[in-house]
Amino acid sequence: MLPKLNIVPFVSVDNMMKLILAIGVERFLIELAGFIEADFRRWELFDKTPRVASHSKEGVIELMPTSDGAVYGFKYVNGHPKNTRDGRQTVTAFGVLANVSNGYPLLLSEMTILTALRTAATSALAAKYLAPSSARTMALIGNGAQAEFQALAFKALVGVNRLRLYDIDRSASLKCVRNLAGLGFDFEICATAEEALVGAEIVTTVTADKRYATILTDNMVGAGIHINAVGGDSPGKTELHADILRRSDIFVEYPPQTRIEGEIQQLPPDYPVTELWQVVAGEAPGRRDAGQITLFDSVGFAIEDFSALRYVREQIERTRLYDELDLLADPDEPRDLFGMLLRAQAAQPAA
Amino acid sequence: MLPKLNIVPFVSVDNMMKLILAIGVERFLIELAGFIEADFRRWELFDKTPRVASHSKEGVIELMPTSDGAVYGFKYVNGHPKNTRDGRQTVTAFGVLANVSNGYPLLLSEMTILTALRTAATSALAAKYLAPSSARTMALIGNGAQAEFQALAFKALVGVNRLRLYDIDRSASLKCVRNLAGLGFDFEICATAEEALVGAEIVTTVTADKRYATILTDNMVGAGIHINAVGGDSPGKTELHADILRRSDIFVEYPPQTRIEGEIQQLPPDYPVTELWQVVAGEAPGRRDAGQITLFDSVGFAIEDFSALRYVREQIERTRLYDELDLLADPDEPRDLFGMLLRAQAAQPAA
Repeated sequence: MLPKLNIVPFVSVDNMMKLILAIGVERFLIELAGFIEADFRRWELFDKTPRVASHSKEGVIELMPTSDGAVYGFKYVNGHPKNTRDGRQTVTAFGVLANVSNGYPLLLSEMTILTALRTAATSALAAKYLAPSSARTMALIGNGAQAEFQALAFKALVGVNRLRLYDIDRSASLKCVRNLAGLGFDFEICATAEEALVGAEIVTTVTADKRYATILTDNMVGAGIHINAVGGDSPGKTELHADILRRSDIFVEYPPQTRIEGEIQQLPPDYPVTELWQVVAGEAPGRRDAGQITLFDSVGFAIEDFSALRYVREQIERTRLYDELDLLADPDEPRDLFGMLLRAQAAQPAA
Repeated sequence: MLPKLNIVPFVSVDNMMKLILAIGVERFLIELAGFIEADFRRWELFDKTPRVASHSKEGVIELMPTSDGAVYGFKYVNGHPKNTRDGRQTVTAFGVLANVSNGYPLLLSEMTILTALRTAATSALAAKYLAPSSARTMALIGNGAQAEFQALAFKALVGVNRLRLYDIDRSASLKCVRNLAGLGFDFEICATAEEALVGAEIVTTVTADKRYATILTDNMVGAGIHINAVGGDSPGKTELHADILRRSDIFVEYPPQTRIEGEIQQLPPDYPVTELWQVVAGEAPGRRDAGQITLFDSVGFAIEDFSALRYVREQIERTRLYDELDLLADPDEPRDLFGMLLRAQAAQPAA
C-alpha cells in the first residue's frame, strides 16, 4: 500500500493509556528501559544539545531535540510547579519522531504519561548499575505524579519491594499507597524525610518545589546508599544539601545540561562526574564498593525521550492504538502547493 | 463552560485550506501581514534565539521558538531540496502556541501552507517599506511551491500586477501562470533570469537548490531595484553574487540568524545591515532614494511564525475550523497521574 504522505500517526492520551495497559506497566517499564539502555550504548552516535529553554516567572517551556542520524526526535515539555493549584499538571509534554532523510514526521505522541514512564525507567536503569545489588527498600520522598512510576520501575528492574514514603502533604502518600495496593509492596508512611531514610538502601527524591530546597541534609545520608535525585531539574531547583554531593560519586546524563539544571549546579563547573552512558557501555565503573554513596543526578535528557518515542512507535505498529493526523500538506505535485488550494476550492460545494 | 484541559485545538491541512478559502487568499495575506507588522513593532519584547538546526547530508530539521512573555510559540520545519524527487514537499512544517503562564499548548497547526503564506506576507511587508512605491512589475525567479503566494502577496500589499517568470524548468512557470490565471496579473514567461529582470522594479528569487548558486549576477541588477531574496536561507545555500550585496542596502530579520543562513553569509560578519523591524517601527529609514538598490535578505524568523499562529488562532475561534486533539493528560487530581491510568483500566470492558 502506498503511504499517505499527509498522515502522521498520533498517539493520544487515551491511546497511550490503552497501550500501557495492554502491555502492562511493569513490562512497559522493563522494555522501555531496554530501549534506553540500547540507545545509551550508542550514545556517541547522537546529536546532543542542551535543551532549549524559555524561562518565565511561573515556569519553563523547553524543546529537547536529538537525532541518531536516521531518526530525529524532539519533546515539548513545560515545568510549572504552581499549576496544581488550578487543577493542571506541573509537567505536560508531547513529542515527535521524524525521518532525517526527508524531514517528514513519523509520529506525534502525548508524552505527559510517557515522560513519567521514561523518567522512572531511566532512574531504575541507573540504579541497576549503581545501587547495592541487595537493595530492596527505597525511601520515596515526594509522592506526587511521578511517585508510583518510580516505585514500579524500581520494583521491575531492581527488585525493590519495600517503600518508605514521605511527602509534606500526607494525602499524597496515602494516594500512593492506594494506587500501589496489591502490586507487591510493603509500605510505611513516614512523618519526616529522615524517618523515611531509616533502613533504606535507595532514596528517591522527587519533589516539585521550584526553589533551592534541602530535602536531604548531610547527616541523613549514611554510607552505601544510592540516591536517585529526580526533582532537582532546573536552574534554582535543587533538593540535596551540597555536602551530600561532595561525599557522593556523581553520575549524570549529559554534563553540559546537568551542570545548569541538576543538583551539581551547586558545585564548581569542573567538579568531576561520570556519565551514565559510560557505565552502561562498560567504559566506566558503576558501584565499586559497599560503602560508596552513589548519586544519580537525574534531569532528563533528550535521548531518553527519543528511546521512549522509538519504543512507542514500535508498539503502535502492532497494536494499532493511534489516530491518523492530517498534518502534512501533500499536493499531487510537490511544487504545486497553491494548486492544492485551488483544487480544494473546486471541490467545495457551491455556496 | 469549563475548558477541557486535555484538549488542544488542531488545525489540519484540510481545515487550513478551508480557512484560507473562507477568508480569501489575498485578504488572508493582508491580515497576516498586519499581524506580522504589529509583532515587528513590539520586536524588543520577544525572546529571540537563532533556530535550533539539525543538519544532515540530505537536509535540515529545525525548531524555531519564540515568546512575547504571554504566549510561547515554536515551529518544526524541515528543508530537504531533493524531496520533490519522490513526490514529497521540500519544506513541511507544523507549529504550536502555548500559554507561558502554565505551559499548556493552546494550538497545534499545520504550517506547510501557513509557512508559504507567512513567508510571502513578510516579503511583501518588507517591499511595502523598501520597494519603489510605483513598482508594478516583479521578476519572479524560481516558480516552485512558494511562487504563487509571493505573487499574490505582492499584488495585495504592494500593487504588483505584472509578473515576469523564470524557472530552469519551464513547466514550473506554466504551472504558475495556470494557477494565477484570472487573478489580475499580466504574465511573461522568460527564457533566462536576465530576460525576466527587464523592466522589473522588484525581483524575487525563490529557488530551491541547496548550494551556492548565482541566480543573479551583478551586471543584471540595475539602479533603483528592490531585491526580495527568499531562496538563500541556509548555510551553503545562496542565490546572489556577492557583488550585488555590496551595492545594496541590506535589510534582514534577525542578524545572528541571517549571517549564518542568508545571502550575507557571503559577507564579513560585521558587514552593516538594517533590521526590518526597525524600519517597520520607524526607527530606521526604508527606501531613501530612487537609485538605491534595496535587498531584503529573507530567511524566515520565529516571530513571523508566531504572528501567523496567532492570526490562525484568532480566526478558528470564529470559524470553528479545527479538531479537538486529546494531547494532554488531565487527571482529576493533578498529582494523581498514575490513578488516571488505574481508572482507565477499571473503565475497560472485562476481557
